[in-house]
Amino acid sequence: MTSYFDGIAPISFDPDATTDLAYRHYDPDEMVDGKRMEDHLRFAVAWWHSFAWEGGDPFGGRTFDRPWFGDDIAAAKAKADAAFDLFAILGQPFFCFHDVDIRPEGASFAESSDNLARIIDHIGEKMANGGPRLLWGTANLFSHRRFMSGAATNPDPDVFAYSAATVKDCLDATHRLGGENYVLWGGREGYETLLNTDLRLEMDHMGRFLNAVVEYKHKIGFKGTILIEPKPQEPTKHQYDYDVATVAGFLQRYGLEKEVKLNLEQGHAILAGHSFEHELALAASLDMLGSIDMNRNDYQSGWDTDQFPNNVPEVALAYYEILKAGGFTTGGTNFDAKLRRQSLEPADLVAAHAGAMDVCARGLKAAAAMLKDGALEDARRERYAGWETEAGKGLLSASIEDIHARVLREGINPEPVSGRQERLENIVNRYV
Amino acid sequence: MTSYFDGIAPISFDPDATTDLAYRHYDPDEMVDGKRMEDHLRFAVAWWHSFAWEGGDPFGGRTFDRPWFGDDIAAAKAKADAAFDLFAILGQPFFCFHDVDIRPEGASFAESSDNLARIIDHIGEKMANGGPRLLWGTANLFSHRRFMSGAATNPDPDVFAYSAATVKDCLDATHRLGGENYVLWGGREGYETLLNTDLRLEMDHMGRFLNAVVEYKHKIGFKGTILIEPKPQEPTKHQYDYDVATVAGFLQRYGLEKEVKLNLEQGHAILAGHSFEHELALAASLDMLGSIDMNRNDYQSGWDTDQFPNNVPEVALAYYEILKAGGFTTGGTNFDAKLRRQSLEPADLVAAHAGAMDVCARGLKAAAAMLKDGALEDARRERYAGWETEAGKGLLSASIEDIHARVLREGINPEPVSGRQERLENIVNRYV
Amino acid sequence: MTSYFDGIAPISFDPDATTDLAYRHYDPDEMVDGKRMEDHLRFAVAWWHSFAWEGGDPFGGRTFDRPWFGDDIAAAKAKADAAFDLFAILGQPFFCFHDVDIRPEGASFAESSDNLARIIDHIGEKMANGGPRLLWGTANLFSHRRFMSGAATNPDPDVFAYSAATVKDCLDATHRLGGENYVLWGGREGYETLLNTDLRLEMDHMGRFLNAVVEYKHKIGFKGTILIEPKPQEPTKHQYDYDVATVAGFLQRYGLEKEVKLNLEQGHAILAGHSFEHELALAASLDMLGSIDMNRNDYQSGWDTDQFPNNVPEVALAYYEILKAGGFTTGGTNFDAKLRRQSLEPADLVAAHAGAMDVCARGLKAAAAMLKDGALEDARRERYAGWETEAGKGLLSASIEDIHARVLREGINPEPVSGRQERLENIVNRYV
Amino acid sequence: MTSYFDGIAPISFDPDATTDLAYRHYDPDEMVDGKRMEDHLRFAVAWWHSFAWEGGDPFGGRTFDRPWFGDDIAAAKAKADAAFDLFAILGQPFFCFHDVDIRPEGASFAESSDNLARIIDHIGEKMANGGPRLLWGTANLFSHRRFMSGAATNPDPDVFAYSAATVKDCLDATHRLGGENYVLWGGREGYETLLNTDLRLEMDHMGRFLNAVVEYKHKIGFKGTILIEPKPQEPTKHQYDYDVATVAGFLQRYGLEKEVKLNLEQGHAILAGHSFEHELALAASLDMLGSIDMNRNDYQSGWDTDQFPNNVPEVALAYYEILKAGGFTTGGTNFDAKLRRQSLEPADLVAAHAGAMDVCARGLKAAAAMLKDGALEDARRERYAGWETEAGKGLLSASIEDIHARVLREGINPEPVSGRQERLENIVNRYV
Repeated sequence: MTSYFDGIAPISFDPDATTDLAYRHYDPDEMVDGKRMEDHLRFAVAWWHSFAWEGGDPFGGRTFDRPWFGDDIAAAKAKADAAFDLFAILGQPFFCFHDVDIRPEGASFAESSDNLARIIDHIGEKMANGGPRLLWGTANLFSHRRFMSGAATNPDPDVFAYSAATVKDCLDATHRLGGENYVLWGGREGYETLLNTDLRLEMDHMGRFLNAVVEYKHKIGFKGTILIEPKPQEPTKHQYDYDVATVAGFLQRYGLEKEVKLNLEQGHAILAGHSFEHELALAASLDMLGSIDMNRNDYQSGWDTDQFPNNVPEVALAYYEILKAGGFTTGGTNFDAKLRRQSLEPADLVAAHAGAMDVCARGLKAAAAMLKDGALEDARRERYAGWETEAGKGLLSASIEDIHARVLREGINPEPVSGRQERLENIVNRYV
Repeated sequence: MTSYFDGIAPISFDPDATTDLAYRHYDPDEMVDGKRMEDHLRFAVAWWHSFAWEGGDPFGGRTFDRPWFGDDIAAAKAKADAAFDLFAILGQPFFCFHDVDIRPEGASFAESSDNLARIIDHIGEKMANGGPRLLWGTANLFSHRRFMSGAATNPDPDVFAYSAATVKDCLDATHRLGGENYVLWGGREGYETLLNTDLRLEMDHMGRFLNAVVEYKHKIGFKGTILIEPKPQEPTKHQYDYDVATVAGFLQRYGLEKEVKLNLEQGHAILAGHSFEHELALAASLDMLGSIDMNRNDYQSGWDTDQFPNNVPEVALAYYEILKAGGFTTGGTNFDAKLRRQSLEPADLVAAHAGAMDVCARGLKAAAAMLKDGALEDARRERYAGWETEAGKGLLSASIEDIHARVLREGINPEPVSGRQERLENIVNRYV
Repeated sequence: MTSYFDGIAPISFDPDATTDLAYRHYDPDEMVDGKRMEDHLRFAVAWWHSFAWEGGDPFGGRTFDRPWFGDDIAAAKAKADAAFDLFAILGQPFFCFHDVDIRPEGASFAESSDNLARIIDHIGEKMANGGPRLLWGTANLFSHRRFMSGAATNPDPDVFAYSAATVKDCLDATHRLGGENYVLWGGREGYETLLNTDLRLEMDHMGRFLNAVVEYKHKIGFKGTILIEPKPQEPTKHQYDYDVATVAGFLQRYGLEKEVKLNLEQGHAILAGHSFEHELALAASLDMLGSIDMNRNDYQSGWDTDQFPNNVPEVALAYYEILKAGGFTTGGTNFDAKLRRQSLEPADLVAAHAGAMDVCARGLKAAAAMLKDGALEDARRERYAGWETEAGKGLLSASIEDIHARVLREGINPEPVSGRQERLENIVNRYV
Repeated sequence: MTSYFDGIAPISFDPDATTDLAYRHYDPDEMVDGKRMEDHLRFAVAWWHSFAWEGGDPFGGRTFDRPWFGDDIAAAKAKADAAFDLFAILGQPFFCFHDVDIRPEGASFAESSDNLARIIDHIGEKMANGGPRLLWGTANLFSHRRFMSGAATNPDPDVFAYSAATVKDCLDATHRLGGENYVLWGGREGYETLLNTDLRLEMDHMGRFLNAVVEYKHKIGFKGTILIEPKPQEPTKHQYDYDVATVAGFLQRYGLEKEVKLNLEQGHAILAGHSFEHELALAASLDMLGSIDMNRNDYQSGWDTDQFPNNVPEVALAYYEILKAGGFTTGGTNFDAKLRRQSLEPADLVAAHAGAMDVCARGLKAAAAMLKDGALEDARRERYAGWETEAGKGLLSASIEDIHARVLREGINPEPVSGRQERLENIVNRYV
């Protein structure tokens, strides 16, 4: 049987390779801080960008010619077969999908549901023959015109219903395939204009929707993690899941802070005005760090460019936060990254993933080395050491009057202490 | 006695004026939706920008020549006298201040504290002779080098103590002057680099600090509102009080969501990637809308430009959200706006305020007219009408399986409905 | 014959209308500064957004259901008929198109060329029956995958050739229909990555291409203006026609500064970090102001949102620059604005245009009134009055040594003078 | 004699160092592509950030305690002595200054001029004893309030005169000290509001000013390069020297394109919406690449953060463009970078420079290796190979009609070719 990727051999680890169709840094079996590199990074390939996306942008249409493009079950199976061909080449342990990535749209909900079931059978068979596992599944509740005004937050209750039914199908499918997480990205859960929007009602509906998903997860015994993926905007002007802090407040308001974790994406962090490591560190500090969508955004573009990561120092800072938080449990590193639309060739698709995996491997190793070195964490501890003293601890239970009296009595007049930022950055540069 | 503003008469309402040293739209006594315009808008002048700021920017120093510039008590009193001269010209009902705006820095906490008390006496006397009231007081915990690494979130417990003691003085002073609110803006409560920062510990300290402030407020019987002012960044790379959603989550995490409300600023909303009306609507939807800092940010500049507002349609949308939420209670419209540094003359300072007050008056009247017209709210209600039906209400308590079954049974296939954004914008343009 | 717009009557001027299917401000015959309002504004409707765009965005597909959507000549004619139906309702004097908006793509260049000719015949007939004139035509050299790496700047000479041939057809068509301008927007004339780009060669090719267009224009006797439309990015990471200053430098470098003018768009100005009035004023100062694409960009979105204009104060500042520069000659006000994708109804399309035309009419009238008032221009002249003195004029021909000697001799020590920004803004607010 | 830097030994090359007070990568004598590393990089320390800046920001004052802070000649000499102490530690070959960095402001132009002369004597003596050379001098025409409305573009001719006289002094001083370049950064040559600005007149004045500088340079026999440093905004809303493309157009318009080159800064490129390598590549393509101000901007902050560079992959792409353009001639790598204001210690200042020099050294070596490898340039040549054919060359002189005929005759229908962006990025990642 021929494959779209014919002529491209499986990628293997070769530190001296001079081609980008090899891993120069990613050695799945290399032990990093007591764990195999593969088990640290837990790479996943994204069905939507790597197999379903056609290369369009707001000013131009399809550029890719993929033999599997089409609208029927046969095309969907061909797409799945090509996906597993790529997985065999890359050897990554996981993949991810939306329902619409893998099945044709039907004329009715029932038909779409049935299409999904048939493709899940097909994928299940392919997984049974080896190949990667499912990191997470998700429902696309934003592309079809029925979702144009939102899914759980749609003004029309029928869309809420349609969305809930869709999530049931997708969560069932994820469960059946042994998925380790289930993700919700609310691409249209937001607004285009406040003039036609009832914020409070929409957020209440979103809270109820998510509670219903969590209830169903427990009912069917799905042991994976439910993940919310924050994004501030695009396609909407404003998305309710703006960033980590926003989602954390939302989850707490609707009683879900123990049930739901976060799937964080570099590009979405950038759009929200944050660095990726900020979002990771904040999620970790709130015990909500779940999984990541690894990509990069072009800093000079104001939209989500979803490029494959290529900056090792930045990636290292991301994995540093992840390792500090204990590493992934059910989560992993999903490449929510798409080829540039001019990158037409099969080898472009393979090499983009391989290069990105190498970048992540380098980042992970640097992060582990920085943690092992300990200089950064030593400096951090030293900076806050005052809070370990009795006087420091006492402050946190004292009243303002007592503190006021103490400041007067002791003539407290604090002298600032260097934050040493550049020297800490120099430490980082020793490892990246 | 001569005044800096000699030659400038009190501003009065004159709809046909051809000078900007008159109010063409702001008539304090005009009734708008059953309330005097003055009581709706509750204008306040900000001591820092209008009297303390010297006209510097990151690439240049002082441009203003004000006779009251100086570092001693006499200068501070002269500044207060000039402030009340301006207040007499403008006739606005409120003012606001930080401690450092009104008193000279002392060599020790005790001396600064004493300086503050002396100036509060002076201001209290001037208030007793008529003149505006205090909308809110606040402590400047960001300009002095001791605060360079934060106040409540400083790695040094002594700075936490110094900050708490300072807030005690400022809250006492606010209470004594009959202030209607007390504001906290955490300009340095954030970080320059994650490399030297312990996010969780710093946020815990900030939560404790704010609880201590609330405890003290109750202890002294201060009936005003405690307000947090969100800002995403600048001067820090990241500020913990990023935006409304972030602060709402923070308050809930530390048990303060019933105790603290928000002071929202247009420029800070812009820096956080939001429109001002978004922040207002979100705060209102969370019952956290307190007061506003009215200004505008230049959309082409990436920092906080704090310009006087001048775009009526934008201001109208802000007051629309405020009126929909019931209007101000303890809050008001503080001009956190500074002259451009090239605007050197006394008349520039007067005219900038007068022009801004007119812009706000126009915005308020347009907002009230839109609410009275009702077309926007009618359209909003109609858009969500499906949720008033039995089927709609039932969805919010149904399980996902039940919804799934219903979608299949009824063949639900929602047809999208126009969001009518442009037509709603046309309605707005009928009033602005 | 039924029309998509059946039931919507022609829009007429009615200052007291309470519907947005009327002009409350746009009265074509009203004289403004000695010229009919219609002749000032010279409104044009854009074929691409109003008839060809299907409502898609990067995360979702078509939302609009238009009966004329289709890929053949019959559909193209139906689209043209619908367009003229809308024109009859709006009564605007002009329209604009790209080739691909009006004709189906053929299987070959020859077939596309022939399709264009057939539709031009059809449109020509409709124009002969009354209806608006052609403000400008243009070629879409960015949507088809053949242009993915640029048109004039494509690494493949065949694409350069294909593009030149396409422009010939479009310029011929524009000439034939009596178009008043011909526009080039180089949406893909730029790069995604410098790593594969030869900047100098690509710009040289673009310079040659534009010269060839100008040569051809003269050869066929086209009297209209050739216009370049700057945009900084999107879809590309970088577009060579970044902004007014960039294009001005380019035109001069390739000897075209007397031959080509600019078509300026509000949204593109914003993306380039400028206000719209900046781009207009700069183009005017370089004698390159040609025409405008009127729309607005959402300031909180980082991409080109192409919304209908709705902020009168901003629009007034734009027309102020245009009137100061003498008003349009061959140019006009083209609505390069698209409905929000949730605005599905025929009435949305009509009302969006009508509302935008009213906003522009208000802006124009305010601009004319400000010019007539003269206060802004008087203040400007006064500010630079020193340059009218002999000493001032002499400086511009003096050597640095002579100036140095004079500064020493006369002890020159300049005292700054107020820039009066807020007071000038107050003047503007008297009119908007 | 004691020094501020007592206890810090000269930094030397030690690839195995575990402290950041050593060069692990910067070995001045290492040959890179046939030239000493020192002669490639030509590092300069900036007087303003490293010695004059006090640690203030828009929300806080001085944080640094430097013994040389003061307003008189003695303090200025102490500052110079400290500077040469740091130079001795770092061993970099160059430094740069503004007049105001090195001399106290006088009460008159004559006194400021005299102060400058005295300090230039002092610095000249120190240079005579060894130590670095002068990469460039410049005049600060933006900090003093007299320049608040511009220098060459000020509405007041006296400020134009004062500015010209100042440049004479600074150019004379630069010449006397053997400076290799003279830089002009027009921080206030722009506007805060168009309402009070005459763009054309101001740009004409700026053009005349620059011509006068060039005339004077030739008169005194200064052989160095005159450099313009573009920046889009900050402190002004708009700066006339926006970016490379803007300045290139300006220079050509005023006949200076052969006389003046560019000094490019990473942070300014970012603020203008470009990558640093874009600005470098564009300047090189226009034969205007002169020198660089190496720093980095925080991508999440909207103002000029002027941080020391720390991202090797980004720096490597910058040096790649510089090496492709033939490397520096009179230019060099000036660190226009300031410590974070919390970095208070002498060792922070030393380590920040040393770390940055190492980052640049790594970037340079990677860039040289990529050029030597040749894979990137081979791919680029191959991509444009069609333009080397007869058919390709012929296109550039053909008329549009001839091209049109050929497209029809030959049935040209171009098939797109992969741009291979990810694979090129993989090549880069082999070296950084």
